[in-house]
This record gives sequence, structure tokens and C-alpha cells, in this order.
Amino acid sequence: MEVPGLPKPPTAASAPRPPARPGSAPPPPPAQHHARGPADDGFHVFDTTLRDGAQREGINLTVRDKLAIARHLDDFGVGFIEGGWPGANPRDTEFFARAQAEIDFRHAQLVAFGATRRPGVKASEDLQVKALLDSGAPVVTLVAKSHDRHVELALRTTLDENLEMVRDTVSYLRSHGRRVFVDCEHFFDGYTADPAYATEVVRAAAGAGADVVVLCDTNGGMLPGQVQAVVAAVLADTGARLGIHAQDDSGCAIANTLAAVDAGATHVQCTANGYGERVGNANLFPVSAALELKYGMRVLPAGALGEMTRISHAIAEIVNLAPSTHQPYVGVSAFAHKAGLHASAIKVDPDLYQHIDPTLVGNRMRMLVSDMAGRASVELKAKELGVDLGGDRDLIGRIVARVKERELSGYTYEAADASFELLLREQVQGRPQRYFRLESWRIIAEDRPGCEQSNEASVKLWIRGERLVRAAEGTGPVNALDRALRAALETIYPELAKLELVDYKVRILEQAHGTTSAARVLISTADASGEWSTVGVGANVIAASGQALEDAYAYGLLRAGVEPTE
Amino acid sequence: MEVPGLPKPPTAASAPRPPARPGSAPPPPPAQHHARGPADDGFHVFDTTLRDGAQREGINLTVRDKLAIARHLDDFGVGFIEGGWPGANPRDTEFFARAQAEIDFRHAQLVAFGATRRPGVKASEDLQVKALLDSGAPVVTLVAKSHDRHVELALRTTLDENLEMVRDTVSYLRSHGRRVFVDCEHFFDGYTADPAYATEVVRAAAGAGADVVVLCDTNGGMLPGQVQAVVAAVLADTGARLGIHAQDDSGCAIANTLAAVDAGATHVQCTANGYGERVGNANLFPVSAALELKYGMRVLPAGALGEMTRISHAIAEIVNLAPSTHQPYVGVSAFAHKAGLHASAIKVDPDLYQHIDPTLVGNRMRMLVSDMAGRASVELKAKELGVDLGGDRDLIGRIVARVKERELSGYTYEAADASFELLLREQVQGRPQRYFRLESWRIIAEDRPGCEQSNEASVKLWIRGERLVRAAEGTGPVNALDRALRAALETIYPELAKLELVDYKVRILEQAHGTTSAARVLISTADASGEWSTVGVGANVIAASGQALEDAYAYGLLRAGVEPTE
Repeated sequence: MEVPGLPKPPTAASAPRPPARPGSAPPPPPAQHHARGPADDGFHVFDTTLRDGAQREGINLTVRDKLAIARHLDDFGVGFIEGGWPGANPRDTEFFARAQAEIDFRHAQLVAFGATRRPGVKASEDLQVKALLDSGAPVVTLVAKSHDRHVELALRTTLDENLEMVRDTVSYLRSHGRRVFVDCEHFFDGYTADPAYATEVVRAAAGAGADVVVLCDTNGGMLPGQVQAVVAAVLADTGARLGIHAQDDSGCAIANTLAAVDAGATHVQCTANGYGERVGNANLFPVSAALELKYGMRVLPAGALGEMTRISHAIAEIVNLAPSTHQPYVGVSAFAHKAGLHASAIKVDPDLYQHIDPTLVGNRMRMLVSDMAGRASVELKAKELGVDLGGDRDLIGRIVARVKERELSGYTYEAADASFELLLREQVQGRPQRYFRLESWRIIAEDRPGCEQSNEASVKLWIRGERLVRAAEGTGPVNALDRALRAALETIYPELAKLELVDYKVRILEQAHGTTSAARVLISTADASGEWSTVGVGANVIAASGQALEDAYAYGLLRAGVEPTE
Repeated sequence: MEVPGLPKPPTAASAPRPPARPGSAPPPPPAQHHARGPADDGFHVFDTTLRDGAQREGINLTVRDKLAIARHLDDFGVGFIEGGWPGANPRDTEFFARAQAEIDFRHAQLVAFGATRRPGVKASEDLQVKALLDSGAPVVTLVAKSHDRHVELALRTTLDENLEMVRDTVSYLRSHGRRVFVDCEHFFDGYTADPAYATEVVRAAAGAGADVVVLCDTNGGMLPGQVQAVVAAVLADTGARLGIHAQDDSGCAIANTLAAVDAGATHVQCTANGYGERVGNANLFPVSAALELKYGMRVLPAGALGEMTRISHAIAEIVNLAPSTHQPYVGVSAFAHKAGLHASAIKVDPDLYQHIDPTLVGNRMRMLVSDMAGRASVELKAKELGVDLGGDRDLIGRIVARVKERELSGYTYEAADASFELLLREQVQGRPQRYFRLESWRIIAEDRPGCEQSNEASVKLWIRGERLVRAAEGTGPVNALDRALRAALETIYPELAKLELVDYKVRILEQAHGTTSAARVLISTADASGEWSTVGVGANVIAASGQALEDAYAYGLLRAGVEPTE
């Protein structure tokens, strides 16, 4: 939908600049409009999706996946892409080789991740450190311990030797021309336990030539006030360039990242969609959007922010997780409004109802057609779907009446855009958008001893005067019905073969009790270029599914440019 | 896995107290150990899942759902449950009537939500205000405009009349003995546009007798530093008791809520699992956990925090959304560790690798390679259900193994206590808790021209060596199956005639696509003295329903004191 009102330039934040906190670090730097490039090193957006993000339970990336994600991250314009731990596993080693050979990075530099050398071994003789050099990455992030207990328990060495490991490894990599960032693991917990030692690790890293020392909230337990105070103190104590790496275990990773920036950090480590171990990491997209739109900083190349929604969804597809519908800025629900009450005000000034103009991040405002629907929201929704109602008051009135009537009998159009569009077109054109007429169906499902469960459907239907009778088996009664209908329909409409059912939800409506209730079915269907949702309501789950399937086919054919026939 | 190390008492936070921000509001109040009750009014945890949370796209609550959620919220110990907008829709009106009749609230007070009176009408003559009184709720939250543009554009009245609407409505409700909270909608945006007017609205509300004035970040665009600064300024200007209502559009709702508390707010509005319009609201669970475990405050009744994970998942089941696996504190991944690297260190001191002890919130550490959790929770649950496991380690091990095996194939026991109890008793007694043996079933569902839809089920089953064959019609295939099974069963177990199916939910499990997926069915059944839930999983909805029905009958008979026969 075209949101009325001019999109704001990315530097004019629609929310006010954060007021300086009383007595806190200086406000964020003003917007800068120079071009980005290797020389533009003032602020780092550092992505670790391919390394730390891949720790998320359920993510398992192939080298091909990692290459595809790296391309998207470079398009988005992050300054650094941490690609993995070369030497630690062969897939990561292969990734570094191929990424450098195959990708022509426009914005990002490739970063290899590794650990400081082992205790009691020279950096130059540590195979793991050698693998970092061998990766060919121009930048290396070294993880170092900065929490006294972790030094003793996990590294099993002394506090002094740990400092020596940091100095030795940083100097060695620097002497081989690598830029070095040091991740101080468990820094905030370590600082709480022993601030002097934790600070000493920062000093050792910076002193040995690390360009950025990244303070990590590895367990994710910090809150923004704590992060801000510790970053400010360490900055004052050491003068080192500081970065922030925040995990989301308290649900504050985004805020913690921004709090560190408030306190003077100039390097933020994030992952696409917040993927990461346990709860996840600071989410690259809302962090970047906040810095650009609310702090007025320029941290991405011009135009990149407008690609954010697309890139977020594309990366979700690559890691094979459904994009979170409720993700800030980029979720499909992020700018969705239940219209009723405020629809008319939203029409006049949408900016009163959204924290930013969604087009700035490549998203859009959506009006949800709900039981509070009125004329204004139907008009907005139609416009969004590209159906011109031409301000026809009678027509709009008929549509509203029809929506209300259907919602009373249990339909919901909020999650069924395609069914709503069919209803809309039916009213606009004054005739049903139908491709066949169902005469009858029958399902036989049975479970007999010694047999597999069986589900069989037969259907009789008419298309352009021709009567088709087909039967099919399925894994369940609805699947059998779907197959039988398609067996008939595809003889006339071969386009349907490309459709895939991707989600199926049933809700039993409350009018009556228990299994005597009416059922509402929501079906999501996809073709090569997109996905749509349809709804059906019936006395039982099969009838309701049949209806939702009929809408799903109809919408699929409409998209394919086939004219309704019945 | 048994986590080594003693659980910490809820008042000894495992993370340090947030350091006071330089120059900011005083640090949070110290832990208080007094009992809660109506007298304990110092800090409000206010839940609006049933009103604002229900705005989430895809949530559609029945009155029964709302009652079930209200019970869970009361168990969790929130001080206030905003139940909806009585008068605005009949479902909410019914909810208030039934909640007061049917629920014996132990901790929460019921809150009705409504708007200030219309312009130009006395509060005493406004039907919407009357409906708030009629709801019988002891507390009313009034939404008021505090942003000048919204007053003009959405209310279409003058700034003065808006102030009068606030004063008049608050005084009127107060004069009828109601406690009144005022939600200042779009407060932060309004404060940015015109701080004097926004502050004036707060003063008008407090002056007219509102106990709490809630500053709402309705568009969710604020960042914690802004929230903290504005709350501190308004508190200093007005002296009113302030609350916070934060939307999550910037991904900072939790941090914003805590920032408001840092600045002196003593009332937090949240929703279970962060459900809400667009991206969602401040999530009740991490906010409560941060206040209890990190601020050292006592905002919930003793023991309630340990129920948090269970309650979060149970509410997700009721709203029919999959519980978020990556939700802070309560997600199944929230304390999941890829064991490899640090396994031995985690074994020696798990607290080095987690921001809190997960058992404090009823969650558990999981090692992703070898998952061995559950003994403690099975013992607790058995105790809760009155089944004595006598500390028998082998028995508990068998139960844990059985639960895991079933959960792997898609069962969930969080919302199916009765099925869990049957499983438990089966293991304790070493034999199934069964009352019949199903030989086979068959369903025929059809829709023919000129006929009503027909659904017919036939079943063959054995009870105490007797073979029974019965058939029945129903309004849907599952209803027909239910009736056919009962037709057979009631000849032997007349007790079943008293059972009523009161709710029925289907979720398609994610393994496969669309209608070929496995189905999970949750059924609620009631007799004269209570209600119980059972679960079934199968290749299709009918098979899954059959299983859940079998458990439902078995549990009903067990309650009625009938001994298992098969």
C-alpha cells in the first residue's frame, strides 16, 4: 500500500533524538553524509551471523548457505562479516577460501574468528593461530578470557599467562599484517567479579595492537544501565576503542547494544534476525535501524536500509526458519493495524500511528480487516491490494456488510488476505470468482486391525459444463480431499500443479461445545513467487478445509492470470 | 540434567544489581519480603494480555480462552488483570460476568478497560462509561489522549475539552467507588511534540483522583534513555504515581519498562509472552524475572516465579500459538548449550555459563548433545497430582524416558495434565490405565446435492472380553466418532454420560508441509465437578482426536472411581 505522506529522508528521524541522559556519555554523533569505504572506519557494524548466529539451535549451515548469506550481508552494507573459525572445522576453512574467490565484496571485509594461543605455547607455534593466518582474512577476531574464574576453570592457566596469551597472539597477528579485534568473553560478569583484572585484559589487548576491544555480555544477563556504566568506566580507564557484543538472555540485547553506543562504543556486533545461541544475539536489523533513523547516524551505505525487510526474509529462508512475523521493523506484522477505531485518523496522518515510515526499511503498513472493520479500513485494504473501489459508497457499503456477515459466522480475514481479495473482487465485479462448481464429495477414513490407516476421498465437480469425477487417497481426510480435487482440476487448470500447501491451521469455534463446534481452517499456499492465505468455515473440519482449499486454488489461478469460469 | 549447585534464593540475584546510572533516578527499591495482598500496593504488575495482548495478529480469544488465561495469570500472581473493554463487544461483557462468578482470584484484581467520555457529553450520561461500571470490575483503566494532534485528529475536540473529559470521567468513576488508572496514549510522542500539554493531562488525571497515570509508548518507537528521561521529568513535575506501558516496535519494550522503573515508575503493564499489536508489548515474563532476580524486588507471590515457564507455555497453547523456543527465560532454548567446548566447565560451575539459575523460573539447562533433564520436574508434577513416586529413581527414570519419547513424537503435556497423569499412573502401576480396546473405526463424511452434509462413524471395540459394534452420526467426523465410541462405552460405563467435551483444539505439527502433516489435538472435558485436558497425536486429525478422546474418557472414569479393566 502507498502510505500517504512523503517518506522522510533517512536522516530525519521520525522519533526524536534520544535526549542526553543526565550526566551520561555525550549524545550520539551527528549524522554524517560522507561515502563509506575502507577509510570510513569511525563506526563499525560487525556481523557475526555466520559464526555466532550459527550457534542457534536448529540452524545448520552448509558452505553454500554461508556464501549466500554473506552476499546478502554485503548488500546490506555491514562493514565486517565474521565468517567462522577456520581450522576449527573444515566447512569454515572452505568458506574462507570460497568467499574470497567467489564474492566480490562491495562493503564488507571478511573476518576470521579464533582464540588466543594455548597456555605455554608461542603464538607462532599454535596451529589454531596459524589457521587464522592461512584463512587469508584481512581481519581477525580473537576471543580472550577476561573473567578470572573462566581463566582458571576453562583455560586452566594463571591470570598472568592469560594476559601474556592476549599480548602474544595479538602482536603476532599484527606482525603478519592482520587487523585484530579482541572479543573479551564474559566481560561484564568478569568486571563484576574483578574489575581490575577485566580492565587489565582490555589494556593488554589494546596495548598489543588490537584496534577494537569488544566487551561481550556472553551470558546475556546484563541490563542497559549496567552496560552503559561499565562501558563508560572502561573507556575512561583505558582509552581503548571499545565494541559491544550482547546476547539476548534478558530480552535486552538491542537496548544493551545501544546503551554501549551511548557510553562511547563505536563497534557493534550483531546477527541477522538475532540468531544465536540460547535466546540469540543483538539483532542486526533493529540495531542498524535505530542507529540510522533514531540516532541520525550513517552506518550503512545509502539506500541499504530500504532493503532491510527483503534481506531479513531472504536470510531466514536460507537458514530455513520461518521469518518471525513479529520481528521489529521487518516482520509482516510490524506495521499491521487493526483498523476499526482509528482507521479514519490513520488515513489522514499515518505517522501518528507508526514509529517510523515503514517504507524506510522496505516494509509497509497493513490494515487488518477485523470485526471492528469499517468503511475506512476496507478502502485502505483495497488500495493495499491494488483493487480500485473508486470511492463508490454503495459498493464499499456492500463490502463492509458482506465482511460483517461472514465474520459473524466465524470467518476471519486478518490472516486470510487472499480470501478477502476474492470477496472484494466478487463485489466489485458483481459475480463470484470461481473456477469450478462442487457437486458433492465423500470421505472414507478407517483404521482396521492389520491394515494401515486409510483415507479416501471422492469428488464430483463441474468445470465449464463438464462433469468430472475423481478419487484419491491421502495421509489424512483433508489431504485426500485436496488430492481428489486437484486430480479433477488439474485436467483443466494445469497451473494448479505448481501450488504447494505450506501451512494448515484449524480452530474450533465456540458457538457450540466440543466436537460439535464449527471449524475454521486457515490454509497458506505458495507458488514460485509468493504465498497467500485463505479461510474456510464449516460445521466440520473437512467442509471448512474444502472451502479454504477452493479459495486457495481460485487465488492461485487468479495470480496465474486465468479468468474465472463459473 | 540435574544442574549442580544449589538454586539461589530468588532475592539473591545471580547478576549484580544494576549500578546506578550516573546522575539518574535512585536505584530500584531494595527487596521486600512482606506478604502480598490488596494492602501491598507499592508496586503493580499489571497484565493486559486479555485486552492489549489480544490485539496480536492471529490471536482470537473465546470467552473460555480468556477465563483459562485469567486463571493462569492469577496463579502467576500479577496484581491486576485487564480483562477487556466491556460494552465495546459482547464477548468482553460476558467475560467480566463469568470471571467474577467463576474464578476465585487469589492475587489479581479484575480491571475493565474503557475510554474517557465522549466530547460534549457528561460522563454520567455516556453509555460506554456506564458499561465500565456495569462490568462490576473494582478497577477501571481509562485510556486518555495526551498527544495534541491525536486530540484534534482522532477525538476531533479541543485540548481543553480533552482535559475536561479526563477529569469528569475519572471523578465520576471514583464517585462510584472504582479505583481508576489512566493510560495516557501516545504519551512519549505527545511529550516530544508538546511537553506542557502532555504533562497537563497527567496532572488532570491525578488531580481528579486517578491512582496511577500510565505513560504509554503506544507506537513503540522510544529507546530506554528517552523513556527514563521523560518519566523522571514528569515525575518531578507532577508528583503523580506513574506507570509504564511499552510497545516493542524498536525491540526495546523490556528495557524501556525497566528504564521507567529506574526513573521511578511503580506500575508496569505487560502481556504474557509479549503478545500484542504489531510487534507486541513488553513481555510479562522477562520483566517480572528481571525485577525479581536482578533488581531484588518482590513483585510476585513466593514460589510464583518457579511456575513461569509452565504458565508461559500453557498460555501459548490456549491462544493456539507455538511457544517461542527462543523467548528469554522461558523458551526451551533459553538455557540450551551446545555442550562440546565447555561441557566440563559447565559441569563444575554452570553458573559461569548462565545469567540465572534456570530452575528459578521453572526452566532447565539443556545440553544439546545429551539431553537428560526432567527428573525433578516429574517428581514435582507427580506430587502436585497426588501420585506418590516414593523417590524411586528407576521409576522416575522410566517416566522421564517415556515423556521424552512421547514429546519427540509431538505430544505436549504442559496443557494436558490428564494425559500426563494417565502416563504417570501407567508407569507407577506397571499397566495401562485403559477401559476398552479399540479394534477399528471407520468414518464416512459426505456432502451431496440436495442432502444435508452427513458424518457417520462406526466403531468396533472390546470391554472385559465383550465385543461391541456401534455406529453414530455427528455434526462432523470427530463428533460422529465421539458419539459412536460413547454409544458403545456407555452400555458398560454409564458414568460417561455425564462427561461433556468443552473445548477442542487442533495444531498441525511442523515436521511436514500442509495437510500431510501430523496433527496434535487437545481436548478439554468436564464433569459436574471439574475440567481436564487430554492430548492425542496422529497422522491425521481423526486419529489424533480418537486418542485424545480415549484419554478423556479414561480420566473421567478414573475420577469417577471406576477401575481400569483392560
